[in-house]
Amino acid sequence: MRKVKIGILGGTGSVGQRFVQLLENHEFFEVVSIAASERSAGKLYGDIMTSRWKISGDIPAYARKIKVVLPKPSETPDVDLVFSGLDSDIAGEVETDYANSGVMVISNSKNHRYDNDVPILSAEINSEHLDVLSFQKTKGKIVTNSNCTIMGVTITLKPLLEKFGIESVFLVSMQAISGAGYPGVPTMDILGNVVPHIGGEEEKVQMEPQKCLGKVKDGQIIPADFKISAHCNRVPVFDGHTVCVSVKLKTKTTENDIRKVWAEFQGEPQKLKLPSAPEKVIDYRTEIDRPQPRLDLMNGKGMTTTVGRLRPDPILDFKYVVLSHNTIRGAAGAAILNAELLYKKGLIPVS
Amino acid sequence: MRKVKIGILGGTGSVGQRFVQLLENHEFFEVVSIAASERSAGKLYGDIMTSRWKISGDIPAYARKIKVVLPKPSETPDVDLVFSGLDSDIAGEVETDYANSGVMVISNSKNHRYDNDVPILSAEINSEHLDVLSFQKTKGKIVTNSNCTIMGVTITLKPLLEKFGIESVFLVSMQAISGAGYPGVPTMDILGNVVPHIGGEEEKVQMEPQKCLGKVKDGQIIPADFKISAHCNRVPVFDGHTVCVSVKLKTKTTENDIRKVWAEFQGEPQKLKLPSAPEKVIDYRTEIDRPQPRLDLMNGKGMTTTVGRLRPDPILDFKYVVLSHNTIRGAAGAAILNAELLYKKGLIPVS
Amino acid sequence: MRKVKIGILGGTGSVGQRFVQLLENHEFFEVVSIAASERSAGKLYGDIMTSRWKISGDIPAYARKIKVVLPKPSETPDVDLVFSGLDSDIAGEVETDYANSGVMVISNSKNHRYDNDVPILSAEINSEHLDVLSFQKTKGKIVTNSNCTIMGVTITLKPLLEKFGIESVFLVSMQAISGAGYPGVPTMDILGNVVPHIGGEEEKVQMEPQKCLGKVKDGQIIPADFKISAHCNRVPVFDGHTVCVSVKLKTKTTENDIRKVWAEFQGEPQKLKLPSAPEKVIDYRTEIDRPQPRLDLMNGKGMTTTVGRLRPDPILDFKYVVLSHNTIRGAAGAAILNAELLYKKGLIPVS
Amino acid sequence: MRKVKIGILGGTGSVGQRFVQLLENHEFFEVVSIAASERSAGKLYGDIMTSRWKISGDIPAYARKIKVVLPKPSETPDVDLVFSGLDSDIAGEVETDYANSGVMVISNSKNHRYDNDVPILSAEINSEHLDVLSFQKTKGKIVTNSNCTIMGVTITLKPLLEKFGIESVFLVSMQAISGAGYPGVPTMDILGNVVPHIGGEEEKVQMEPQKCLGKVKDGQIIPADFKISAHCNRVPVFDGHTVCVSVKLKTKTTENDIRKVWAEFQGEPQKLKLPSAPEKVIDYRTEIDRPQPRLDLMNGKGMTTTVGRLRPDPILDFKYVVLSHNTIRGAAGAAILNAELLYKKGLIPVS
Repeated sequence: MRKVKIGILGGTGSVGQRFVQLLENHEFFEVVSIAASERSAGKLYGDIMTSRWKISGDIPAYARKIKVVLPKPSETPDVDLVFSGLDSDIAGEVETDYANSGVMVISNSKNHRYDNDVPILSAEINSEHLDVLSFQKTKGKIVTNSNCTIMGVTITLKPLLEKFGIESVFLVSMQAISGAGYPGVPTMDILGNVVPHIGGEEEKVQMEPQKCLGKVKDGQIIPADFKISAHCNRVPVFDGHTVCVSVKLKTKTTENDIRKVWAEFQGEPQKLKLPSAPEKVIDYRTEIDRPQPRLDLMNGKGMTTTVGRLRPDPILDFKYVVLSHNTIRGAAGAAILNAELLYKKGLIPVS
Repeated sequence: MRKVKIGILGGTGSVGQRFVQLLENHEFFEVVSIAASERSAGKLYGDIMTSRWKISGDIPAYARKIKVVLPKPSETPDVDLVFSGLDSDIAGEVETDYANSGVMVISNSKNHRYDNDVPILSAEINSEHLDVLSFQKTKGKIVTNSNCTIMGVTITLKPLLEKFGIESVFLVSMQAISGAGYPGVPTMDILGNVVPHIGGEEEKVQMEPQKCLGKVKDGQIIPADFKISAHCNRVPVFDGHTVCVSVKLKTKTTENDIRKVWAEFQGEPQKLKLPSAPEKVIDYRTEIDRPQPRLDLMNGKGMTTTVGRLRPDPILDFKYVVLSHNTIRGAAGAAILNAELLYKKGLIPVS
Repeated sequence: MRKVKIGILGGTGSVGQRFVQLLENHEFFEVVSIAASERSAGKLYGDIMTSRWKISGDIPAYARKIKVVLPKPSETPDVDLVFSGLDSDIAGEVETDYANSGVMVISNSKNHRYDNDVPILSAEINSEHLDVLSFQKTKGKIVTNSNCTIMGVTITLKPLLEKFGIESVFLVSMQAISGAGYPGVPTMDILGNVVPHIGGEEEKVQMEPQKCLGKVKDGQIIPADFKISAHCNRVPVFDGHTVCVSVKLKTKTTENDIRKVWAEFQGEPQKLKLPSAPEKVIDYRTEIDRPQPRLDLMNGKGMTTTVGRLRPDPILDFKYVVLSHNTIRGAAGAAILNAELLYKKGLIPVS
Repeated sequence: MRKVKIGILGGTGSVGQRFVQLLENHEFFEVVSIAASERSAGKLYGDIMTSRWKISGDIPAYARKIKVVLPKPSETPDVDLVFSGLDSDIAGEVETDYANSGVMVISNSKNHRYDNDVPILSAEINSEHLDVLSFQKTKGKIVTNSNCTIMGVTITLKPLLEKFGIESVFLVSMQAISGAGYPGVPTMDILGNVVPHIGGEEEKVQMEPQKCLGKVKDGQIIPADFKISAHCNRVPVFDGHTVCVSVKLKTKTTENDIRKVWAEFQGEPQKLKLPSAPEKVIDYRTEIDRPQPRLDLMNGKGMTTTVGRLRPDPILDFKYVVLSHNTIRGAAGAAILNAELLYKKGLIPVS
């Protein structure tokens, strides 16, 4: 079978660069188009990105040769699926245009996340949410992934919700600067500093996990019924969001049992052996001072959620710490894993 | 009246250096002795500290000329009061020796903090705890200050407790590296990283505020009755601990009323116009992204507690962010303010 | 005598904020106008700067109440002198307009630095360059200060040039991020990194010291006759440029003699006791690992040049390290010191 | 042929950990022993290293099961070759003991570097120096690699020396904190700071390249005849030493010709296709602001020397910037490459 023809929307930005990198030599996918703003359109990706490539390692050779176009269906006539790393000021409309034109849209932007018939897909935990795709009225379908900050947290909550039920979740994030894109955070604001505010972040963080962990009923996703309180902070870390989590469960349990359900947790990507699926979905570190961005960031090639410090909480029931890679697991890597799941389930129409 | 003769115990360490700096030209106090370990004893402070002085600005001239001695009462015969910045492995015993010998001990170490008849004095909030000093059996008395992490938090809780009552407090700290002293945190552990663990810190943080905010009854300090849950983290910030706080109150109130009680909060140091007392005990910043270590650290010469981002909490009642200077307000500065309070209350016997 | 009425051009930027801060309660000067771009014009400085003020400590009260105007002589009719911290894309023309309108211009921008009749004034080392002002054809005169990177270096070279003669200078800078203004350097580019390039910097650094150290002849400044080779780097330091210097002298000398001429070096600002003049122009630290930004940045309130590590150089004659504060000594502080010198010399016409 | 049996001396330290990591599944080598100090001896490597492993990624499984011994030949009876990452206070003697006992010693320590009959081997540039091994009187032979700071610099100088001759070299380093090992540099000394001194470093840097680039004559290495002047600095970078280089050549040439000799440069490791040999020895980046540690550190798996910014120097002839990975190319990786070269040349006696 031929590979799925891929367009990357917003391919010159931070998330776009990760898509370009992670899709090199992909087993199912072949990048045929890269779209970006007018500033870049009409030029070779290799030419314009030499001084804008911000990921360690070089621009993949395949991408250098692609001529950048505008993010419009008419400019990318041969794509089956687009990955969207567009800015949210234009992502909503452009993604709808693509869906209308019959192209599958896998989006990292927030714009469609809260539409009733659009899943916030986290491949290991809610593949059944794909059932709502048939309720979307467009020919192509839109699938989103969650905000980077709660990606790992939601994965750790999934087995807790299944086994013990969740009453409430308190979380405080210490987020990497790469989450703000490029140029993003000015150095004067963050070097040797902490900024206790990230615009719009706490709102997303307090709302998205419940949808991710919800149930599908009559073509609608009914959010899980628990409350989240979040404080979001920016810290001088390059990649990797660290989150302190406290959780109140519905059923009494023990630390051992929690570690057990985490260790055993596997999702469809693992069963289907998807190319981007990490072997361990959740990796619990027993050292007293882990996880840490520096040491655990690339666990499972950046796709594993690393957890540590499970201990009792004097107010809620348990406390622990979660780390996940915000631009791989929390953005481009998650979107690609989502697309791999759709592919294996035959949900990407390849004519 | 003559100045109080001061000894600094542990004067070569991080907290000791702050004592040396902050006591230069003090209105009430005159440093006559500096004590440190055998490595330093017998040498001039100026000679040994040239390459060990880690505070911006030079070693004060007065201190350069002092010959360092061992931390024993017999070595510092003429002191009325000692400030102790000793390591906790020796602080307990040495401080008891000094108290036995009739010297007033103002300690920044944790060793005696949990003794029933020793106050954890925070001059603005619990000066009535000094009543327990008369129950100490030693001729000299021991007064401690709290852990640096909860110093500012406890100050913000005081007026909330008085006016509204406190049910529970959730807090997550992002702590500066200077809190670990020198050499302290290896750069390999923290540059561009977050370490979600600080040995023994969460235990102190979950216990000390209740004692600070307790009531004296029959010569005993009865801790305030609320629970604290804490996550403590180390971040790559030089000075200044930032703490995210969520609080559940006993009485319903509004953000406006909370800001009002904070703005109005004054303690005895302000009434007595003590030299180290900041004009504002609590400074509420209205900007959306404050407080920040870089911008707010030196508020009130490092003695003001800066607060911001008061907003509703979906689980408890309110959330906010606190910043205080960990080696000034959280250590040497607080100890000096405590001594100033004792001095003005006539509790330092100056023969 | 009344104070000189001051306008600050570019008062919302990084250098402009330093001007606002350092001119609070100045003995000779009174800020009456602050000018900035259209985005800010018409609004109160206090209102627009709340979230844009990037210096530790608060916006001075006097400045909060000033209504920002556009940088045009007609908008600031009552000023005697303007300090310009304008971007170089507009500074040249605006400054000429002010000079034409009869206002004295003290500029931190590079635009007029290389004009034959405009001095690059460094108050301690070349006050005789003010003789060329009478050759400027405008009614108001323009005085510039040098690039921040060579400010301290040039000061250390002055007494060497006088006593020993200079053959050539090799220098490598490690420059703070504040030198790039705000937003300036993106965190993704510099956190845990070194960037071995700063646009246009090496050109300035290889040329300006010779003009600063030149002689006035027939109303022209004849540059000193030695060569400079420079490598300029950006490092993750907030404030303070560190420069490694190697120098070849015309006359043989010793380390002792060099330290002696540095220790004895005083300029007109010291003789005239100007308010911003540091007591020590050059402070030589004997510790093996100084100067350092963190420990020596605020030496002489940021106006002293700190030097260390003088030692033989196997190729040229001597090596040493220089630190100076790039936004105080290297920008706003130097400009104010220059203006103070002009004031004391009666060169500012105060009607 | 069986694999060479390897012992790692100092296997718990920073360089030792890199050896453990890089030797996993090596084509020629098999680690059978790990030696360290008394604190660790007698315990399983996996047990003691859990909290001391400082490299991203986990401790290799093979190493976890090795029982650590003391660094004595009698404790490691079955090794053919040892890699030494020992501290210099004991390395000299221990390495001599091993050589006496007939074991090949590949050392990263400085102790034997300046012995007349010990090569400072940099596999691409001076494999002919191995001729002096036969002059060593011990049964086993000692081979060292150079100081990490000049590793990359010396590689870039080699083709310049061959083609154009070198008169003198000026260099200023900005060195990563990992070069100081663990715990190494205290965070209080380097966060947001530059330290313009590294003990003993400038001496090594001014002397080792000449030996590396020397000629063998009568069993002696005659150093190349040019002078180096060095300033060495520590900067807040994790891995990767950046060096600004200026060079005066004996023959006039052009930037193009220099880039050409660099591009064409290949050594014996490339010809022999050694497992650790990078494809490109020197990689010249054409971007204006490269090399940078963050983007170029892992070029050639950390074994390629990345160069950029070649341009004229007003005093010497040319300036450029060099980056190399200090713990891979500058330490463990270089030592392993050296051992691979010895292996392929049949210089490791495998009984």
